[in-house]
Amino acid sequence: MKLAVFDWQGGCHVGRVKEAEGVVERFDVAAATVEAAGIGCVFSGAKLPMTDTVPLSLVTLRAPIPRPARNVFCIGKNYREHVAEMANQGFRSAPVGADGPKAPIVFSKVPETVIAPGAAIEIDPAVSTAIDYEAELAVIIGRQGRCISPENAMDHVWGYTIVNDVSARDLQLQHTQWLVGKSQDTFCPMGPWAVTADEVDLSDTPVKCWVNDELRQDSNTALMIFDVPTLIAALSNGITLKPGDVIATGTPAGVGMGFDPPKYLKDGDRVRIEIGGIGTLENPVKAL
Amino acid sequence: MKLAVFDWQGGCHVGRVKEAEGVVERFDVAAATVEAAGIGCVFSGAKLPMTDTVPLSLVTLRAPIPRPARNVFCIGKNYREHVAEMANQGFRSAPVGADGPKAPIVFSKVPETVIAPGAAIEIDPAVSTAIDYEAELAVIIGRQGRCISPENAMDHVWGYTIVNDVSARDLQLQHTQWLVGKSQDTFCPMGPWAVTADEVDLSDTPVKCWVNDELRQDSNTALMIFDVPTLIAALSNGITLKPGDVIATGTPAGVGMGFDPPKYLKDGDRVRIEIGGIGTLENPVKAL
Repeated sequence: MKLAVFDWQGGCHVGRVKEAEGVVERFDVAAATVEAAGIGCVFSGAKLPMTDTVPLSLVTLRAPIPRPARNVFCIGKNYREHVAEMANQGFRSAPVGADGPKAPIVFSKVPETVIAPGAAIEIDPAVSTAIDYEAELAVIIGRQGRCISPENAMDHVWGYTIVNDVSARDLQLQHTQWLVGKSQDTFCPMGPWAVTADEVDLSDTPVKCWVNDELRQDSNTALMIFDVPTLIAALSNGITLKPGDVIATGTPAGVGMGFDPPKYLKDGDRVRIEIGGIGTLENPVKAL
Repeated sequence: MKLAVFDWQGGCHVGRVKEAEGVVERFDVAAATVEAAGIGCVFSGAKLPMTDTVPLSLVTLRAPIPRPARNVFCIGKNYREHVAEMANQGFRSAPVGADGPKAPIVFSKVPETVIAPGAAIEIDPAVSTAIDYEAELAVIIGRQGRCISPENAMDHVWGYTIVNDVSARDLQLQHTQWLVGKSQDTFCPMGPWAVTADEVDLSDTPVKCWVNDELRQDSNTALMIFDVPTLIAALSNGITLKPGDVIATGTPAGVGMGFDPPKYLKDGDRVRIEIGGIGTLENPVKAL
């Protein structure tokens, strides 16, 4: 099942996407509830009454969780070839060998970074001159838990969406901890919608990213260093995970910083991410 | 002015503390509003009607912002002697020389880490065996802003409180980015209340921390490497700061990890932090 959050006729709604038919079946939920929790407002599993069916072409999609209740959890260096490309660019920290980190690298993006499909990634030349894209599968937590074992981890996954973990490389290096470089306004495009866990096969799902029409990232979730159950176990090790938490699982090789010279984002670019079983997230880049 | 959030007669309230008289003047604000925003619910500046005066001895204090709207911003290595004590313990990262980092190190703690004065810091031996205290002055933002200059930074400060930036050292080192080690459940004691900006002289305010009756940290906000205006400028450089944001400004020397052998927290300890102009924040330590 695909669930979308969208604006239509002046209100914010949640509904079930039927792509083949080009429509979304709208649920009967108050706009304020949808704005606060996004798709999280239907996690209870209660059978919600449908109201009407709206053509997808008439709605404006929002991010499926427009404003997460706390910072988006993000994983760094979780694909081997990406570890290698970053090591050449000053991102070689002691515990990360050629084979990758010994434990998941976890950082965060503030919730207000989240923007909708089609919304502009804003680059401010006065703040950063090294802004990069990162295509990532994002896990959406559906059930609370602490010290979750890898064996039980998938019971806590509601589903998935796509996140572009946009990053200011100069600020990441300058501040050493990554929050500032990762939390710049507009740096978390999310969408186009969320899908339930059964729609994605973690052992074989393509992750691709184009900048304009150039294919830059072309990998597969099978190549993660730490798989989703391991990430959930590591993150919940002393931290209570909550429904609506978003975990961006790391990006594969092919980011702008990995090229020589680097290919950073510039005004007028379009970043398009495609993840199998979910769909396509596309955002333009706009200089302030 | 000192503002406290507290439980009394089954409800959650906000009020003005009159320490000398041992009372708190309760404002007329709905409990749900106070629970959601803490002292942030009175930032508008509107003259709020007082209701009644309650003896401090009858109320149970909560953290002044019981559940921040997004992760607590934290600054690392912001006192020179603390930089030195940590460098000997594996926390020497390339851009941090003997004189400290070249730019503020910014990371975060999830909002649910916040606990009240007197609430237990829980240590879970199955998760970490190296849990440490960090006494810190915390800035509370009162006015929204982006790319704030150091000259204008103080216009965005509503006031201050005390934060204990409790840290699992082993998890910090293992995960390299600090979020997991810093975001363990109960790892952000905050309080005892918040004070308006005029109550703290940043150029000369003592910061002290005792574990049981041993004075471990004894410093002064004058010794910060990056002062509060510089921190606000660095953090708002591309990130819109919002009213209610909390910025823990870093801890001075004397943390448990700095001793040889290290003096980590253990079951039954009491951590007491005193910051001039604010008050005292004390929390017991309890093993799970």
